[in-house]
Amino acid sequence: MSYLEKVNSPADLKKLSLHELKEYAEEVREYIVEVVEKNGGHLASNLGAVELTIALHYVFDCPEDKFIFDVGHQSYTHKIITGRRDDFRRLRCDGGVSGFENMRESICDAFTTGHSSTSLSVGLGMARARDIAGEKYNVISVIGDGAFTGGMTYEALNDIGESGTRMLIVLNDNTMSISKNVGAMSTYFKKLRLSRRYKVLKTTFKRGIDGIPILGSTLVKAAEKVKLAIKKQVDNDKMFDKLGIKYYGAFDGHDIGELVYVLSQVKHLNVPVLVHVVTRKGSGLYEAERDPVKYHGITGEPETALKFSEVAGNALCSLAEKDPKIVGVSAAMLPSTGLEKLKNKFPERCFDVGIAEQHSVSMCAGLAASGFKPYFAVYSSFLQRAFDQILHDVCINSLPVRFLIDRAGAVGSDGVTHQGLFDLSYLTVLPEMCVAAPRNGNDLQKLIDWSAGYNKGPLAIRYPKGYSASCDDEPAEIEYGKWEIVRESENGIYAVAVGPNMTEIALAADCGVVSARFVKPFDTDFIEVAAKRGDTLITLEENSLSGGFGESVLGYVNGRNLSCRVINLGFSDKFCDKRTVAGALAENGLTAENLSAIIKNIIAKKQ
Amino acid sequence: MSYLEKVNSPADLKKLSLHELKEYAEEVREYIVEVVEKNGGHLASNLGAVELTIALHYVFDCPEDKFIFDVGHQSYTHKIITGRRDDFRRLRCDGGVSGFENMRESICDAFTTGHSSTSLSVGLGMARARDIAGEKYNVISVIGDGAFTGGMTYEALNDIGESGTRMLIVLNDNTMSISKNVGAMSTYFKKLRLSRRYKVLKTTFKRGIDGIPILGSTLVKAAEKVKLAIKKQVDNDKMFDKLGIKYYGAFDGHDIGELVYVLSQVKHLNVPVLVHVVTRKGSGLYEAERDPVKYHGITGEPETALKFSEVAGNALCSLAEKDPKIVGVSAAMLPSTGLEKLKNKFPERCFDVGIAEQHSVSMCAGLAASGFKPYFAVYSSFLQRAFDQILHDVCINSLPVRFLIDRAGAVGSDGVTHQGLFDLSYLTVLPEMCVAAPRNGNDLQKLIDWSAGYNKGPLAIRYPKGYSASCDDEPAEIEYGKWEIVRESENGIYAVAVGPNMTEIALAADCGVVSARFVKPFDTDFIEVAAKRGDTLITLEENSLSGGFGESVLGYVNGRNLSCRVINLGFSDKFCDKRTVAGALAENGLTAENLSAIIKNIIAKKQ
Repeated sequence: MSYLEKVNSPADLKKLSLHELKEYAEEVREYIVEVVEKNGGHLASNLGAVELTIALHYVFDCPEDKFIFDVGHQSYTHKIITGRRDDFRRLRCDGGVSGFENMRESICDAFTTGHSSTSLSVGLGMARARDIAGEKYNVISVIGDGAFTGGMTYEALNDIGESGTRMLIVLNDNTMSISKNVGAMSTYFKKLRLSRRYKVLKTTFKRGIDGIPILGSTLVKAAEKVKLAIKKQVDNDKMFDKLGIKYYGAFDGHDIGELVYVLSQVKHLNVPVLVHVVTRKGSGLYEAERDPVKYHGITGEPETALKFSEVAGNALCSLAEKDPKIVGVSAAMLPSTGLEKLKNKFPERCFDVGIAEQHSVSMCAGLAASGFKPYFAVYSSFLQRAFDQILHDVCINSLPVRFLIDRAGAVGSDGVTHQGLFDLSYLTVLPEMCVAAPRNGNDLQKLIDWSAGYNKGPLAIRYPKGYSASCDDEPAEIEYGKWEIVRESENGIYAVAVGPNMTEIALAADCGVVSARFVKPFDTDFIEVAAKRGDTLITLEENSLSGGFGESVLGYVNGRNLSCRVINLGFSDKFCDKRTVAGALAENGLTAENLSAIIKNIIAKKQ
Repeated sequence: MSYLEKVNSPADLKKLSLHELKEYAEEVREYIVEVVEKNGGHLASNLGAVELTIALHYVFDCPEDKFIFDVGHQSYTHKIITGRRDDFRRLRCDGGVSGFENMRESICDAFTTGHSSTSLSVGLGMARARDIAGEKYNVISVIGDGAFTGGMTYEALNDIGESGTRMLIVLNDNTMSISKNVGAMSTYFKKLRLSRRYKVLKTTFKRGIDGIPILGSTLVKAAEKVKLAIKKQVDNDKMFDKLGIKYYGAFDGHDIGELVYVLSQVKHLNVPVLVHVVTRKGSGLYEAERDPVKYHGITGEPETALKFSEVAGNALCSLAEKDPKIVGVSAAMLPSTGLEKLKNKFPERCFDVGIAEQHSVSMCAGLAASGFKPYFAVYSSFLQRAFDQILHDVCINSLPVRFLIDRAGAVGSDGVTHQGLFDLSYLTVLPEMCVAAPRNGNDLQKLIDWSAGYNKGPLAIRYPKGYSASCDDEPAEIEYGKWEIVRESENGIYAVAVGPNMTEIALAADCGVVSARFVKPFDTDFIEVAAKRGDTLITLEENSLSGGFGESVLGYVNGRNLSCRVINLGFSDKFCDKRTVAGALAENGLTAENLSAIIKNIIAKKQ
């Protein structure tokens, strides 16, 4: 029986010796590789966190102690330890284990994560709750160096330092965020790593060295190593100390003995503590270690057609060759948004600013106010974080910042936290904002080409995850605010579809098909003409119905009192955790079958 | 002729001697006090920045050099210097000078500000545009220590440090944010202030000491002072230096000579520089200096009735006496949101986290996940900054975080950046979120009392700025998701009003009046009954029509194919810079007259 099979809970883990824990780590690593190669997921970050997670579970008591994994994409080992080993085979599948930490999945998941840089704020909330309630549990936020580029982290550090409350921050420094790490903070971490000066653990050893059973004979070695390092200590004037947070580091994130020793000691400190741990992203898998960017997320999809991201990246790069005012901006997503090509070709005109969507948007506003044409390529669900900056810095000033909104719509296996189902709502509410959605890859290319000349205000182009299936179909020329009639109607019914998936559904049904290329401003001429004919318009959007495209069309028709029946199809008012795009669409009636049934019903009533 | 009258531009300013500049500063100060006492506005922060602004305009060339004032509430002196001295009498009035920096107002306002912590990002965008274009201008971001608690600042610092580009950050450290400054960073600034160790200016003095005409005889004194300080320099291991930003400070923000000297030197450094300047908020006005919180914003309104903020603060404090699980959170707004009472009574259960809305929300999520009942009191327009945290950390987990949304609707003299006209849209799009709006102060009190027992998910209660006029009218008991019929209809027309201002308008017209106390979920029973009667519903909301309350009612009626005419009144799809609430409402047809006209029209068509 393997150790992997023996460990069904953190309690089982605590029974193992150091030697056994190391064996267990290897087995966990192999298991993760096996599952991720099949299901896709975050491989490199999880392989890097195996020993760290084991050490944390060895020293702390989950679920009494609260583990918050920032982003949560590195929580696979945690899931395997905390009773989800077998379920882990269904990682990222419907009803299976989520790819992130998830409160609804297990009592051991103290919080739901997915977006970056939330763990310190959430952790402080839990620590404050503990203090007020007079309880004693530990709160541990595990955060990567990438998430440290997000501003929320500093808002939280500022408050944690002032609060002085007991809380453990484990900085899992794998020298990478999602792609290459960027920013001055990254350079600072590098300095800390290189110095590798251990800080004196001043606390009285409440539990004592003997209290750590696993260390056994290695204990002396580990303790000596730490003591030796202490002697090399030159200064303790770390940035974190200035903020009132005790800094300890940097430690080897793959040495379970060292980690257990250090964590056992800081556990008893009654102040905010940051333990700096250095790991190798992808540790243990040669391929992943060599190319952690590629292995950050594995989708397992075939590369037969162009992804929308690639179409966007290529189009932007071509455009930049002709127009020196074009600039690209990415929030730690150069490869996955297709912007890497631009960065390679025009490094001085493409900026990766870290996981910092707020700063990205306002920085773009500054560029646009200075006569440039900034393009911010970003996932729909991550742009949510810059809602105020879009409104306050871009739209109020009507600055021509271009948003290339990737992963808009259902995203599949990443699940609930990554769905791009709100952007049409949060963008169309903004005055001055123009929102467009192509119906295929060629259309995206056309819109991006067109966008270079659109300088009257902000523009968002949203497109889904994945591949452009109908890339060879050539769409009509772009006309601002106008829709494209893809197929005329013979029965007085038009499906008005936003984006490729919706257009595909519409084409399979018995109706006219309009591509709502411009979601805002939309094509009121078409609506007026359709209303005069007494047509029925069925809007289809891969977005929440609430505040979405359909409701704005309806609002227009109702406001003008037009005799035009409008039917809105889209996502209902609940969060969607379906792990396939098709499943998410089906759950919300966004299928050719449902559309056909609705159309049949309309025709039947007419007759 | 006074110096105030003589200076019509930065060029005029540069002609004055140091002695004359000091005189000018006094005149500017008196003028600001005179206008603000009449028009309201930010007094203390502007009085603190008079000398600093004069020195900046003396050393730099506006508008070629770009001045970005963070928040912009301290830009009065800048406006007076840059050709708006006389217009300044109409500060915060319709068509007059805005209370913040505003691109549309003057070429000298490099950007539009209003919300905190944007200036470094915008400045870096401008600096990058300059570098790509091969231009030479300077970019100067003036930011207060309060704005340094906002996470965007760090996202920007991280990027600025890495970029290494020439950019000047002036940290205007007045030891206060809006109210008392909080957080570990504040403590760090205090240390920097106390040390007052000047950093060596290593640059070659391109312009040389003789190039600074105003210094004249005081030159030697200033230079000696700086040199002396240099000798006291102990370490240059400042946090900013670690991030790749040259730190110089702290300097006396009220000594024009010293400021001019320092700024003239750093002007020629070809790297990111932070100059730390210590000012006294409210300097020069005894009252303001003694009570800068009170004088941060002066409204000039009579204190005859209770403000909604006070009602909310009092209600929460009473509730907290009974329920030990209640916790209050504020983002640097304890006094203005009415939460100060709670803070005074239960300091351990009320947290001011700095200008950090993102952290506030996720921290509340952590508290709620631990069984507490957090109340985050925040302005509508500032909560925009935490849209993703509300969605991702609160709503996905359906955590019972309570949002007390103040200044929802038109806000008057603060203008376009502070309007609370989007919250109904960005909150109702969120699954799990309950949104409520009281029709008067008693209703607000009732809703807050009720909210303590509402634990099934997040709840937002939104109410306007100002006073509750009809506080003595006792509303009906709260029933979840139900509206209150304030007046039955005799003509088949109901005005369905959100909030006090809309209810007041409705009551003045010839129709039934319903208070849409619950905006989400709304009262579908009422709608169904009204539809059976064939009633007309006129929705009234102090919010954008796009994605707002009216459209969701319309979406429901249309989705169920009910025979009920719906008319939506609300704010049109453009930004509103009206500086009075009445003006803003009138511009959007939200008046009793317009409502009456619409009703007459409906009745006429029926007959």
